[in-house]
Amino acid sequence: MQRITVVFILFLISHLLKAQEPAKVLSSVFDEALTDRTAYNNLEYLCKHTKGRIAGSAAAEKAIEFTRQAMINAGADTVWLQKVPVPHWIRGVERCSVTSSVSGKKELAITALGLSVGTDEQGITSKVVEVHDFEELKNIGLQGIQGKIVFFNRPFDNKLINSFAAYGGAVNQRTVGPSEASRYGAIAVIVRSMTQSLDNFPHTGVTRYADNVNKIPAVAVSTLDAELLSQWLKTDPSLTVNLVSTCRNYPDTISYNVIGEVYGSLKPNEYITVGGHLDAWDIAEGAIDDGGGCMQAIETIRIYKKLGIKPKRTVRVVLFMNEEMTTTGGKTYAEEAKRKGEIHYAALESDRGVMSPLGFSFDTDSLKLEKLRSLTSWFAPYNIRDFDKGGGGSDIAPLKALGALQIGYIPDSQRYFWYHHSANDTFEQVNIRELQMGSAAIASLIYLIDLFDL
Amino acid sequence: MQRITVVFILFLISHLLKAQEPAKVLSSVFDEALTDRTAYNNLEYLCKHTKGRIAGSAAAEKAIEFTRQAMINAGADTVWLQKVPVPHWIRGVERCSVTSSVSGKKELAITALGLSVGTDEQGITSKVVEVHDFEELKNIGLQGIQGKIVFFNRPFDNKLINSFAAYGGAVNQRTVGPSEASRYGAIAVIVRSMTQSLDNFPHTGVTRYADNVNKIPAVAVSTLDAELLSQWLKTDPSLTVNLVSTCRNYPDTISYNVIGEVYGSLKPNEYITVGGHLDAWDIAEGAIDDGGGCMQAIETIRIYKKLGIKPKRTVRVVLFMNEEMTTTGGKTYAEEAKRKGEIHYAALESDRGVMSPLGFSFDTDSLKLEKLRSLTSWFAPYNIRDFDKGGGGSDIAPLKALGALQIGYIPDSQRYFWYHHSANDTFEQVNIRELQMGSAAIASLIYLIDLFDL
Repeated sequence: MQRITVVFILFLISHLLKAQEPAKVLSSVFDEALTDRTAYNNLEYLCKHTKGRIAGSAAAEKAIEFTRQAMINAGADTVWLQKVPVPHWIRGVERCSVTSSVSGKKELAITALGLSVGTDEQGITSKVVEVHDFEELKNIGLQGIQGKIVFFNRPFDNKLINSFAAYGGAVNQRTVGPSEASRYGAIAVIVRSMTQSLDNFPHTGVTRYADNVNKIPAVAVSTLDAELLSQWLKTDPSLTVNLVSTCRNYPDTISYNVIGEVYGSLKPNEYITVGGHLDAWDIAEGAIDDGGGCMQAIETIRIYKKLGIKPKRTVRVVLFMNEEMTTTGGKTYAEEAKRKGEIHYAALESDRGVMSPLGFSFDTDSLKLEKLRSLTSWFAPYNIRDFDKGGGGSDIAPLKALGALQIGYIPDSQRYFWYHHSANDTFEQVNIRELQMGSAAIASLIYLIDLFDL
Repeated sequence: MQRITVVFILFLISHLLKAQEPAKVLSSVFDEALTDRTAYNNLEYLCKHTKGRIAGSAAAEKAIEFTRQAMINAGADTVWLQKVPVPHWIRGVERCSVTSSVSGKKELAITALGLSVGTDEQGITSKVVEVHDFEELKNIGLQGIQGKIVFFNRPFDNKLINSFAAYGGAVNQRTVGPSEASRYGAIAVIVRSMTQSLDNFPHTGVTRYADNVNKIPAVAVSTLDAELLSQWLKTDPSLTVNLVSTCRNYPDTISYNVIGEVYGSLKPNEYITVGGHLDAWDIAEGAIDDGGGCMQAIETIRIYKKLGIKPKRTVRVVLFMNEEMTTTGGKTYAEEAKRKGEIHYAALESDRGVMSPLGFSFDTDSLKLEKLRSLTSWFAPYNIRDFDKGGGGSDIAPLKALGALQIGYIPDSQRYFWYHHSANDTFEQVNIRELQMGSAAIASLIYLIDLFDL
């Protein structure tokens, strides 16, 4: 009887200690993240030495080797590269000038859209038709558009609180606009940059030509120059634009996902993926999109190893290649996982910037979301509270078919599109504490989901 | 009977409409704030044309006239200036070099502390004693400190989530440090800049000499140079520093609070004060501290007038002068309110930066706080959720004695101290959407508190 009492008391104590454990672990995770500069220093290197690391570029190769080493230094149990087929698109000379009999002549700040076809060196000279959506395009029709440059100029809706919602409401001009304009005989497309900012940075991004259309050159113009072009068109609808963009698509090439693991202690064959994407647009340092996300993912390894946190499942940090163009990094990763019959428990992506954390989005049903929300109390000391329904990220989306819970890291979005896909996405825009808070949030969530089998 | 039914139905309808009203009003407030650039453009003017507007300066005079006009343009029912006595402190030549027989010679990035006394043009040359707190100072004592320069080098505690808590844990080195060092015979003080950032901006701020001590020159050194000085001291404790800071205190002068009102429709003699402080450190543009706060306060007038919001009580926007040195703007405002027997219902200050809003702090009891928290549901669409116990702001603190509920506007704090009191506090550091979100939050809260008599 006495022995049973002792055992019971010991059980009770261990149980009570265990109930306190997550709070203590999270506290040590935040302490570690907030007092260590490795991720920030590595991000600086990545930005300054592998700038413009679009898939297929020499800079991307350099980024792969650098981050492979960073994962080894972080203490990963194993690190390897996963072969990924990627497009090979190279920007050329780009120049755009507008000539109006009323207003004069002006160079516009432009940048070719990713995967777009180019012009020859003389470029295209033509009248311009300004439209704001595909309905307007349709109404103007073939007669009004044939042989002209279509100028998509629908701004972000500033009334939307979430900047990604505003992006979502404008981005089809860039992704689908060139194809849609081509259907009506347009010879090129100029798209207003995808940002709420009024400045002179043009923002690139991928365009996807439909199979059945004539591929026409497509560029983005800075918002200030979009406003100017629109103004000039009001007083001179016959103005002409000369557009030069000698970018070219070359045959596909090979690149790599960079993968590092912390082996699971109980279920090593179940995987939790934590990722960002390593490629960045050729005109950007890619600090916000998405070097910072990659560094946060690597921090999960470094923090677990430093603090001796042993996850039950294997935590796999994946820096995906080619998110920006055709997401073959994510597709390849999921295909190989399926081929090997791997069990993928959950996957988290950090690709919405590295500002102060608000929380996470989960692509799941209400019942599961309620369970996940039980974790928010652990995050209360860190002001991390949003556990909402929402997508994970484009690189981890293919893992959904394998049953992996999709998780997106959600930082504050207000200033994200000032940088996104532009030369303004530089290391200097990142605040170390905001980056660190995100690293801690991610490492903590993964720990809790694994611990509580959520 | 029929008539009673009709009246009842009308009452019910009006009641139902009224219950919806706050949601609609807040929606229109946010729409207006997020689609108007007046505050942002005015902030740019304030930063670029009244830079360094410390109380008593010509720049401050210019800022007073500019914001008076901005309040008129915003549609204030009345605008006036309130006379405020202010100190008159002027920075001089400042230079600091360290000479070590081991490490060589180096210029350090320094800035005189506000209200500090100066040196002559040759400056002070002396050995340096590094300390981290007043206990250490005491332990070293008169013998070790007499005739030397004391170097306070306690960094922010990076483990603290709220940056203002980290500031609170370090700032006594600046405010009280020079007096404390003087008690032990120190001849000057160098304080590590009040920031988590590792960079080369020195951060100024006021120091307050105790009455019974010899006033000694005091400067702040950039964090990177603080680290360097500390390193050099380790290998050469006998190194010397030459410190020149020819700042001077002149006789007090006169400046002004800028005040604009939206008259109350039901209780015009009850006041709700909404404020920021107009003065800024002489080395800064004062965008974050606190030009942005002033512009947000003026937005309350502009938005109410634009949307036809008629508060029951008079909303008084006050741009306080001289917050940075001796807070005479706030003191004078409260004194005059008391003298006139004004009823002050509530007071809100925006002086914690203009990053994305988290919520508000209220200096009140738990019961009242619970009532105030009933308002959070109206803010849910805007992700504004923190209604916590806490201070209002140093300018409105004297109104507490008059019974005014003290409210502080709380934006995200992570990057605030990168700018605070330094030349890095520039217009470019402000994101228009973050500024606008704060304006909307403030105008909305004031509307709700007035509407529901909270």
